[in-house]
Amino acid sequence: MNARSITAQASPNIALIKYWGNRDDSLRLPANGSIAMSLDGLQTRTSVAWEAGQAADSLTLNGIPTAGAALARVTNFLDLVRALAGFELHAKVASENNFPIGAGIASSASAFAALALASSRAAGLDLDEAGLSRLARRGSGSACRSIPGGFTEWLLGTGDADSYAVAIAPPAHWDLADCVAIVSTVHKPTGSTVGNTLAGTSPLQPARVADTSRRLDLCRRAILERDFAALAAIVEFDSDLMHAVMMTSTPQLFYWQPPTLAVMAAVREARAQGLPVCYTVDAGPNVHVLTEASRAGQVIEFLRAVPGVRDVLRAGVGGPARLLP
Amino acid sequence: MNARSITAQASPNIALIKYWGNRDDSLRLPANGSIAMSLDGLQTRTSVAWEAGQAADSLTLNGIPTAGAALARVTNFLDLVRALAGFELHAKVASENNFPIGAGIASSASAFAALALASSRAAGLDLDEAGLSRLARRGSGSACRSIPGGFTEWLLGTGDADSYAVAIAPPAHWDLADCVAIVSTVHKPTGSTVGNTLAGTSPLQPARVADTSRRLDLCRRAILERDFAALAAIVEFDSDLMHAVMMTSTPQLFYWQPPTLAVMAAVREARAQGLPVCYTVDAGPNVHVLTEASRAGQVIEFLRAVPGVRDVLRAGVGGPARLLP
Repeated sequence: MNARSITAQASPNIALIKYWGNRDDSLRLPANGSIAMSLDGLQTRTSVAWEAGQAADSLTLNGIPTAGAALARVTNFLDLVRALAGFELHAKVASENNFPIGAGIASSASAFAALALASSRAAGLDLDEAGLSRLARRGSGSACRSIPGGFTEWLLGTGDADSYAVAIAPPAHWDLADCVAIVSTVHKPTGSTVGNTLAGTSPLQPARVADTSRRLDLCRRAILERDFAALAAIVEFDSDLMHAVMMTSTPQLFYWQPPTLAVMAAVREARAQGLPVCYTVDAGPNVHVLTEASRAGQVIEFLRAVPGVRDVLRAGVGGPARLLP
Repeated sequence: MNARSITAQASPNIALIKYWGNRDDSLRLPANGSIAMSLDGLQTRTSVAWEAGQAADSLTLNGIPTAGAALARVTNFLDLVRALAGFELHAKVASENNFPIGAGIASSASAFAALALASSRAAGLDLDEAGLSRLARRGSGSACRSIPGGFTEWLLGTGDADSYAVAIAPPAHWDLADCVAIVSTVHKPTGSTVGNTLAGTSPLQPARVADTSRRLDLCRRAILERDFAALAAIVEFDSDLMHAVMMTSTPQLFYWQPPTLAVMAAVREARAQGLPVCYTVDAGPNVHVLTEASRAGQVIEFLRAVPGVRDVLRAGVGGPARLLP
C-alpha cells in the first residue's frame, strides 16, 4: 500500500429500461431490473490516491476543490472501500468530466463507476467486474451499469450480493447512436437520489414494477436480434411509464418541458415516416434520441430544427470502465 | 302521441375526477366513479319530433343535415327510447351548440343529455332525474353528469340500474369559473368512446381504478367545504393520473402538446404565487383552468400571455338539463 495515484475512466449510460425506485434506499437495491447502453465519447476520469498523512478525504471536480454535499457523498462511498481494504486512510480524489453536467446525461453513473475502479485499485483491491459493479451501485444505482461496456443489464438480485450489472452484448454488437437533444441546461430541481425515494408515493409504481419482467424480456430480445422497431416500441413505452410514475408522485416530479414534448412528437413522426429512431427521457427535460449510427447525421439535423432544441450531443456505444496508465 | 317537437337544453361538464375506461363498453358502465362541474353559458339545444310517416331518423347539426357515424350513434340511442316508449316511430332531431366542437369541451356530454331529455319527453315518457341520467349515459358516458346541475357525481353503481349522476352541490354552492385555454382546434385523433375502450391496455389502469375512492372522497370534501387548495391538489393529480394511463396505452394516446405543458406549468407557478388556480385536461390538448369566479379576469389575462394559447373561453357553474318552451 503506497500513495500511488490510480486513474480510471468510465462512460455514462442511457437506460433503455429505466431504474426508478429502490427496495432498499441505503443499499440502493432497485425496485426493478434495468437495461442500459454505455455512451462512447463521453467520460469521467477520476484519480485516487490514499494518503497516509491526510485527515480527511478531499475532492477536486473539473479542477475545482469541492466540499459540501458532493464531498460528503464521496466520503460515504470511500467508507465502503476503507471497510473492504481494512484501513483508515483518507483519499485525494480528482475527477473530470468531458461532458456538461445537467445536460440530461447521468454524470453520477460515470463518476461512481470511475471512482469505484480507481479507489479500489489504489487501495490494493482487485475486484472482479461483478464486485466493481456492486461497489459502484452503492455510490449511485445506475453507476453499476457503467462498469461493463456495451449493452448492460442490472440484475434485480435477491440482495446486496447479487444485484449488479452484466454485459448482455458488447459495443460492437449493434452500432447505435444516442443523439441527445438539449432543451435546457438548468440544473434539475430534484436529483435522482431523492427522486428514487419518492417512487413509492405514486399509486402507479407497483403496477410499473410488476410489469418489469415483460419489458426487460422485450428489450433484451430487441437488442440481441438488433430489431430497431421492437427496441423503439419498448424503450418509448418504458420512458413514458417512468414519467407517469414521476408525475403522479407526492410531491409531483414533472421533468418534461414544452420542447421535451416537441422532440418526442417529432421523433414519433419521423419514425412513422420510416426513420429508425426512438426517444427516452431520464429525470430531466432533455431527450435521448436513439438511432442506427448510419442515420445519426440525419437525426441530428431534424432534431436541430425542432423549436426549443439548443444543441444536440452525439454518443456511440461505449466500452467498460477501465484503468488509465 | 303526436309529432309535437320538444326542445331541451343541456350544458357540457368538466370532470374534476375523470371517467376513463368502462367495465361494460356497451352499457357504458364506468371503471370508476367520477365528479364533474356543469359549465354555464355553454349549451347544446336539441329538438326532437317523432314523426309517423318517416322511414328513418334524421339529424341536423348546427343547421346542417348530417348522416354517417353521427346519425348512426343517434339512431342507436333513439332505439333505447323506442324500446322504452314501445313504438317504432322515427325522429327528426335538430341540435345546435353555442360552443365550438373540438375546443376541448365535451360536446357529446351536452348533446346526449339534451337528446335524452327531448327525445324521451317527445315520446311521452316522464323519466325522473336518475332515469334521464341513466338514459343519457347510454349515449355518452359523461352525458349522465349533464342531467343534474352544479357539482355532480356519477355513481359507479352495480349495473345499469344504479349507475347515474346525482347533484352533490347546486350551482350557487361555490362560484367557480372554468377558463379554457385553447391551444389547438384540430379535431382529436382518437375520440373518447374509442379511447375508453383502450384504457384497459395500460398496465397502470388497475392501479388508477383501485385508487378512485380516495380521490372521490378528497374531491367531494373539497367541494362541500369550498376548499380550493384541496380541490387543486386532487384535480391536478387526477388529470395527470388519467394522462399517465392514456400515454401508456396500446396504441398510445398522447393528447398533450407543448403549449398544454406550458399552460400546466404556468398554472402551477401562478398557484405557488398565491392565485387559486388549477388545471385539468380532458382527452385533448386544451387546458381547463379552474379558479374562483372573482379571479377569472386575472386568470384569463395570464393564460393569454402563455405562448401557444390562442384563445380563452370562460364558463361558470351551470344548471341542470331542462326543457325549453
